[in-house]
Amino acid sequence: MERLVIEDIRPRIKDGAYPAKAIAGRPILVAADIFRDGTAVLTAVVRWKKAAGGSSESFPMEALPNHRWQARVDPSSIGLYEFVIEAWSDHYATWKRDVDVKFEAGQSIEVELEEGARLLEASASLIEDERASVLTDAASAMRNQDLTPKERLDHSLGSEVEQLLSTYPPRNDLTRSRPMRIRIERPRAGQGAWYELFPRSYGGLEGTLKRLPAVADMGFDVLYLPPIHPIGVTDRKGRNNTIPAGPDDPGSPWAIGSEQGGHTAIDPDLGTIEDFDRLVEEVKGLGMEVALDYALQCSPDHPWVKEHPEWFHHRPDGTIKFAENPPKKYQDIYPINFWPETNREGLWEACKEILDFWISHGVRIFRVDNPHTKPLAFWIWVLGAVFDEHPDVVFLAEAFTHPKMMAKLAEIGYSQSYTYFTWRVTKQDLTDYLTELAQGPLGEYMRPNFWPNTPDILSGPLRYGGPGVFKMRLALAATMSPAYGIYGGYELCENEPARDTDEEYLNSEKYEIKDRNWDSEGSIAPYITRVNAIRRGHPSLLELRNIIFHDSGNPNVIAYSKGHIHSGDLVVVAVNLNPAGVEEARLWIDRWPIGVNLEGPVRVREELTGETSEWMHPGPVLSLEPEEPARIFHLTQWEAG
Amino acid sequence: MERLVIEDIRPRIKDGAYPAKAIAGRPILVAADIFRDGTAVLTAVVRWKKAAGGSSESFPMEALPNHRWQARVDPSSIGLYEFVIEAWSDHYATWKRDVDVKFEAGQSIEVELEEGARLLEASASLIEDERASVLTDAASAMRNQDLTPKERLDHSLGSEVEQLLSTYPPRNDLTRSRPMRIRIERPRAGQGAWYELFPRSYGGLEGTLKRLPAVADMGFDVLYLPPIHPIGVTDRKGRNNTIPAGPDDPGSPWAIGSEQGGHTAIDPDLGTIEDFDRLVEEVKGLGMEVALDYALQCSPDHPWVKEHPEWFHHRPDGTIKFAENPPKKYQDIYPINFWPETNREGLWEACKEILDFWISHGVRIFRVDNPHTKPLAFWIWVLGAVFDEHPDVVFLAEAFTHPKMMAKLAEIGYSQSYTYFTWRVTKQDLTDYLTELAQGPLGEYMRPNFWPNTPDILSGPLRYGGPGVFKMRLALAATMSPAYGIYGGYELCENEPARDTDEEYLNSEKYEIKDRNWDSEGSIAPYITRVNAIRRGHPSLLELRNIIFHDSGNPNVIAYSKGHIHSGDLVVVAVNLNPAGVEEARLWIDRWPIGVNLEGPVRVREELTGETSEWMHPGPVLSLEPEEPARIFHLTQWEAG
Repeated sequence: MERLVIEDIRPRIKDGAYPAKAIAGRPILVAADIFRDGTAVLTAVVRWKKAAGGSSESFPMEALPNHRWQARVDPSSIGLYEFVIEAWSDHYATWKRDVDVKFEAGQSIEVELEEGARLLEASASLIEDERASVLTDAASAMRNQDLTPKERLDHSLGSEVEQLLSTYPPRNDLTRSRPMRIRIERPRAGQGAWYELFPRSYGGLEGTLKRLPAVADMGFDVLYLPPIHPIGVTDRKGRNNTIPAGPDDPGSPWAIGSEQGGHTAIDPDLGTIEDFDRLVEEVKGLGMEVALDYALQCSPDHPWVKEHPEWFHHRPDGTIKFAENPPKKYQDIYPINFWPETNREGLWEACKEILDFWISHGVRIFRVDNPHTKPLAFWIWVLGAVFDEHPDVVFLAEAFTHPKMMAKLAEIGYSQSYTYFTWRVTKQDLTDYLTELAQGPLGEYMRPNFWPNTPDILSGPLRYGGPGVFKMRLALAATMSPAYGIYGGYELCENEPARDTDEEYLNSEKYEIKDRNWDSEGSIAPYITRVNAIRRGHPSLLELRNIIFHDSGNPNVIAYSKGHIHSGDLVVVAVNLNPAGVEEARLWIDRWPIGVNLEGPVRVREELTGETSEWMHPGPVLSLEPEEPARIFHLTQWEAG
Repeated sequence: MERLVIEDIRPRIKDGAYPAKAIAGRPILVAADIFRDGTAVLTAVVRWKKAAGGSSESFPMEALPNHRWQARVDPSSIGLYEFVIEAWSDHYATWKRDVDVKFEAGQSIEVELEEGARLLEASASLIEDERASVLTDAASAMRNQDLTPKERLDHSLGSEVEQLLSTYPPRNDLTRSRPMRIRIERPRAGQGAWYELFPRSYGGLEGTLKRLPAVADMGFDVLYLPPIHPIGVTDRKGRNNTIPAGPDDPGSPWAIGSEQGGHTAIDPDLGTIEDFDRLVEEVKGLGMEVALDYALQCSPDHPWVKEHPEWFHHRPDGTIKFAENPPKKYQDIYPINFWPETNREGLWEACKEILDFWISHGVRIFRVDNPHTKPLAFWIWVLGAVFDEHPDVVFLAEAFTHPKMMAKLAEIGYSQSYTYFTWRVTKQDLTDYLTELAQGPLGEYMRPNFWPNTPDILSGPLRYGGPGVFKMRLALAATMSPAYGIYGGYELCENEPARDTDEEYLNSEKYEIKDRNWDSEGSIAPYITRVNAIRRGHPSLLELRNIIFHDSGNPNVIAYSKGHIHSGDLVVVAVNLNPAGVEEARLWIDRWPIGVNLEGPVRVREELTGETSEWMHPGPVLSLEPEEPARIFHLTQWEAG
């Protein structure tokens, strides 16, 4: 039976069924409600260790108001950790509190002193070396009738005595919380600027090498490649998602597998595994990382279809079921049956072997295609197994689905998640969504990755939009979310949709090879370069939960800040959301809870232009043109006196 | 491995470690988030049964927005129940949804019809009687090439077919939630007007019989008696908590136990067990119930002190530790050591036997003295054991302690709880506190019992207050909380504190026998009678979570409502909180979310006076005198047209 209550333990995701999440290098505040019946003084510690075993480290907790306790743990290395909270009554401190009150009230403390001596002896009995005598000596002094009660009491006050008492406490009501798990991930699990490109449009893997310096120069951290595997020929999709494909149409990279191999093969049109290894190395040399697509589906020509027909859905007419979203049909793709009647374990292991293969080739980041159409049980297993062996792997969930499934995927272990950002356009929608992501419970475990566009999604104002809109959406994504990404072509402001009825690009790169003029005059690459440099220069932009929205007095101007004037990195962002006109807004910055005092001047540097200024009461009035819709201000202030 | 997610199950207290709570006769909404990967149509049911065993009943759940599901369960009998939620993919409904879309889109559905036939046969194979042929016949029709595809499809639509499919679904991804427990209690667990009296001031148990009709006439439901056991003589407290007691001082009833017996004995000065049995019967005959005090502590003369010295705390000087809150000393009371080194189980059983004894004498309500000073583990055990045998027992926790402990006691099983109401006096404090109790998570499991006064607590404006203040605090307690109580003497507006430094009454009844003139002219008994009658006439007043606060435009006038104009029982309460002056307030009642439409007239009956009126736009202006500070309005409205 538990003597103390230890509950509402944090960090914890929901009921704690899956590990909480943290990032190496950032302090973790471990907290809990701790109390028991009566009025004893309590002590509590966090015992912290690798989940795989080994010795534990102990962190003392401090009492906060209202029976909340807290300890700070600084995780230095990544991996799965486990902690328990231990708490017990500190009999000596309780005794000391009460005896002091009685002494002050002039009551006799003779019996209390004997009780104190016995408590000292109880701790002494737990010490196996000569230090025990420090406590037994103190006990003797406490019984010394030659001293005054005050003198006898003071003998319990020495720092050595107190140190020993806290190291060797009798803990007869010791209560231990259930063990809690927490996964410490590397910073890239939550932060980074992603750039997506289809190698086939660059001349394959080797051709892609030539594009790398430009991507690195723009300041991207992750180079994400859609599937690079052989593409099926059966029912291959032609340009603009038509059937049948023409003889030269390359097909969709997501129709994975042909006679030339499956998920561990490289499309011969792109190159060889040696080319891939070289790409990984060169990317690394440029300070970036490669992210691969993990799309668990097969073209009709995938080797698994013949080798393991049991891993697919079969129909009464003998065919294998292709992907459908009635009445839409995706004949070039067979979904996998993750619950086959036989050989389920073989299938799941084979899926994991794909990851193992690419991990062995230096890949540590996977963008997972449509995880919400595969069983959660599979993800729980495969993510856990991969993390156990490679705690530095990062999984990005590409689940554009309902909020509870998106949260669940993050809960069970996905490092980061695509979001609804693409469809959050108005000031109200952006404010509500960011507030939910950052300030709600989601903020504890779902790490957003904001994409203004993807090869599947050309949406909102980007459709037919001009460079100003592309700058606007990029500035929002890059300053709101610690992780964001663009699909290459964004810098050229590619804006032509295929139709009004969906969000596809015209002449989508999913079905054809694109040739682009990266040096075109309208490119906003210099702007992207500047934004990424600003991100790297401002740690507060690489956090999520610190975002605060502020009144701008203008429904077309969104204003927010990250950081605090005293934190050394306060960034204020204001963006004109109206692509059609100039918008003015006053920043009433001294009303904001960011520590700025406009009684004295505030030094301001607008990071996109480098212009500096001073802001005075009552705050600046901004005039934001649609062509340059964003301002990213860095604020500093030296307090007078 | 679970195929579906079933989570955030309600009702549930915190993480579900202890049973949720409900009241017999009130519907329970069982809800959960239910979803899985992919797009299958799901089905979910609640399986409900007595926790002790027996067959389960099944309640279908309906899908709400955002993957929330809900079923309504109407608990008819009290006791501990257990439910699980079961959910699975409805393959037939999924197939039907998709085949309909394809048919509408003009696609061939030949293979789909064969799939449908096989689904029908799959259900048929689960049926062991001749009804199976209904499904096999439907399957044959679905394969009948002589019919059109539309005709073949329609053969799956018959109500008998659908009934059988829903009764015998193939459930290959059946997922079952963890079992959840819920305790159904009788209404008295949450509702009732309590009246506390010390029998010794009424001439013992027999004398108390004479007082009963007056208490019943005032409309009280529960007669609560402080301890009626023999009182210790050692270190007995005298009048006004002095030592030593005079020879005629009766001592504190909470100093339980003497040579004449302990917790299962009756103080001979009060009467015999037969007198007590008669009291229980007469109270029942008047439509009330007796509540006894359960105070687990002993006077130095309690039989346990000699029989079981191991159940107490011993000091180095050979004495037993009396109760202390340094520097205060309570020499007439020995706390029990609930974790003795030997015979702990004997102690806990003995404590339960006290309850068993009084239960065998017809008592079903216990007011538990200071439960927060005894182990939670003890309460979890003893409440559970008593509820198992007597699910109609009600426990009221008298824990005036920190909020987390109060919540915990409610969580582990206490039926109702004393509260901070006594110290919530201002409009803001009352509003905040009620909002927390009613609208926060506490509202799901902590049932408040509001006491304007207790024998220990004469507080706030009642100190030296006039009859208007006593009416004000009574009206607030009785209309805000479904359960409330007063300590007898309240009706005489006893208002003299012992000191300014605590909340004791002068000449407290805890230490002396009081003789009162119940017929005194200043008695507010008629007012109390009226308020209790109003409570009995308005079911909405016997609920907690329906309270809504409204703007009165006056910081000294609190206004709130319970119910809705369409529920048939809408009560609006307005109270002047200023004991010193008249306060005016307008009730902008058509702005309130209670369904009132002041375009048409609203018929109003003020229940304290019986006065009727009609309210028109923009709502009434009230003038509230401190002598009659409260208005309790019953509103009805017939919609025009």
